[in-house]
Amino acid sequence: MKKHNYSAGPCILPQEVFEKSAQAILNFNDSGLSILEISHRSKDFVAVMEEARALVLELLGLQGKGYQALFLQGGASMEFLRVPYNLLRDGGKASYLDTGTWAAGAIKEAKAFGETIVVASSKEDKYNHIPKHYAIPADADYFHCTSNNTIYGTQIKEFPETKIPVVCDMSSDIFSRQLDFSKFDLIYAGAQKNMGPAGVTLVVVKEAILGKTGRNIPNILNYQQHIEKESMYNTPAVFAVYTSLLTLQWLKRQGGIPAIEKINEAKAQLLYAEIDRNPLFNGTAVTEDRSNMNATFLLKDETQAQAFDQYWKEAGISGLTGHRSVGGYRASMYNALPLESVQVLVDVMKEFEKTNA
Amino acid sequence: MKKHNYSAGPCILPQEVFEKSAQAILNFNDSGLSILEISHRSKDFVAVMEEARALVLELLGLQGKGYQALFLQGGASMEFLRVPYNLLRDGGKASYLDTGTWAAGAIKEAKAFGETIVVASSKEDKYNHIPKHYAIPADADYFHCTSNNTIYGTQIKEFPETKIPVVCDMSSDIFSRQLDFSKFDLIYAGAQKNMGPAGVTLVVVKEAILGKTGRNIPNILNYQQHIEKESMYNTPAVFAVYTSLLTLQWLKRQGGIPAIEKINEAKAQLLYAEIDRNPLFNGTAVTEDRSNMNATFLLKDETQAQAFDQYWKEAGISGLTGHRSVGGYRASMYNALPLESVQVLVDVMKEFEKTNA
Repeated sequence: MKKHNYSAGPCILPQEVFEKSAQAILNFNDSGLSILEISHRSKDFVAVMEEARALVLELLGLQGKGYQALFLQGGASMEFLRVPYNLLRDGGKASYLDTGTWAAGAIKEAKAFGETIVVASSKEDKYNHIPKHYAIPADADYFHCTSNNTIYGTQIKEFPETKIPVVCDMSSDIFSRQLDFSKFDLIYAGAQKNMGPAGVTLVVVKEAILGKTGRNIPNILNYQQHIEKESMYNTPAVFAVYTSLLTLQWLKRQGGIPAIEKINEAKAQLLYAEIDRNPLFNGTAVTEDRSNMNATFLLKDETQAQAFDQYWKEAGISGLTGHRSVGGYRASMYNALPLESVQVLVDVMKEFEKTNA
Repeated sequence: MKKHNYSAGPCILPQEVFEKSAQAILNFNDSGLSILEISHRSKDFVAVMEEARALVLELLGLQGKGYQALFLQGGASMEFLRVPYNLLRDGGKASYLDTGTWAAGAIKEAKAFGETIVVASSKEDKYNHIPKHYAIPADADYFHCTSNNTIYGTQIKEFPETKIPVVCDMSSDIFSRQLDFSKFDLIYAGAQKNMGPAGVTLVVVKEAILGKTGRNIPNILNYQQHIEKESMYNTPAVFAVYTSLLTLQWLKRQGGIPAIEKINEAKAQLLYAEIDRNPLFNGTAVTEDRSNMNATFLLKDETQAQAFDQYWKEAGISGLTGHRSVGGYRASMYNALPLESVQVLVDVMKEFEKTNA
């Protein structure tokens, strides 16, 4: 039986992506070669890279607007360093919004690099909400935020207006909802939620913001180098890029971001309604900031945990345990998780209520 | 028909590795989940990472000798930067041997970072040999070399003796021949030759050499951070690590490095003998420095190229074209290339001689 996979990432991808990528490992494009043994400079793979880069911009509505899409390595944590290296001027300062563990990780790397101001933080409230009504210094080199916080189940619904460049870590909700992406100057995302397998990072950058730091940037960290080399400065993560392309093609066939957003909203509404209705559970995030990707919740009576765990595991659900730093439960409902899987979880919660209320 | 794949990297891996990794994409460890959708913190994947790290040290004969094996992201080009960040003291200097394009890339990144001395270079001879009889400054923080030069077909046969830490980029010949690996303090290798798919980098480091620079090292570049987090500082390249483990397991079953070295020597002898015998071809590297991994050669009469290309392509050979920066031919004979494939190429060269001499 195929599992109902709620893993927070790496996470479920469309079943057809698994099938096509497995096939490409045995015989890629009917070449008699595996996707794992071909040159990244081969005609077939260069075509994959170019289609993937173009499709990212198309799906985000950023074609012809001065943006470049790159597939890099190192995970979002590498971008925590690349961002200040490329955008923080010598003697300048950066501004960050602290909304969770990953935002804090980005802040830590930036602080070790140069002057870094935290404009607001919800840390004292265990990151249960997104701070609002903060001021962004007009003289900062950029403003950095994290659009979705997987561990705490919160999501930025309205992004601040500012005249300085806006950088956003969208690792856990890119391609899941409609936004005016042209309001962002640099977007980055580890692939392993809505895009592909772990091992590749998407960077979408407005070229005009680069080259202004007056700093010597190491080649491997320099976005301009990667743009000039068309994302082949060095050997890219061939398989991860190919599988990301398969996922992006799947998304386009679903109707792109507008279509998937509707399904994601339906899934989130279904689950949050049950969390709010069911007397055995509490949601952990403030209602207005709830994430449509990761719903975090607790049993009111923790002694029921063992019994509840048995219920959902028997229903074929996996990956529902909360992050080890906070405990409880986390239902990650990325693009490829079907509505049916959410219904199975809701049914389990109802059933559990009947026998344990 | 399965191709005779001479690609310089990404390159051929054992056929059973392709089959097992494709199977894991459909159903990993009979879990009902794809290897692409499981958490890197899952019990099954933590076991993969631990076995891979241990098997690297076992195959290299480095168990219990103070070394740590890490699976990082970014390719060898990222290590070009991590090495000086972690080993070059504030106000210190680094020493490098320049034996080819990748060595030069490492030097470029180091020079932009701090004082860097090139102890010797074969650049003026188009890198057709490995420099010898050079002096390594005793007061340098480390000495860096590249064990095998894929583009120019040369390989270091004897490594210099020095009391300072020795760092070696073994991307294109690790696991291919017996060496006293304990003479190296830091070894790194992009996976995509003898270890696995592109997208993961192996780093083997003697822990005692770390922590001596007096420098603030960004977390993502800090080897000590990756050691403390057991190669899970951030989400690793799950699939690439798993496929690397499959290849390492295969190598162990072949009899490890001693056994594969014999086969690699037989393959290289077979091909170099034909290059030397056949009046239509010239080898490009000085004989004593010839690489057992990459044999580079030229047609004496370049007007025969089109005809020769047709010959080998018709024989099911792929990836024989030389690097775009040097032209000619390059036969990459990594661990997974069978002796039979080399015989096919030698037969093609003989056949071509008969009709074109």
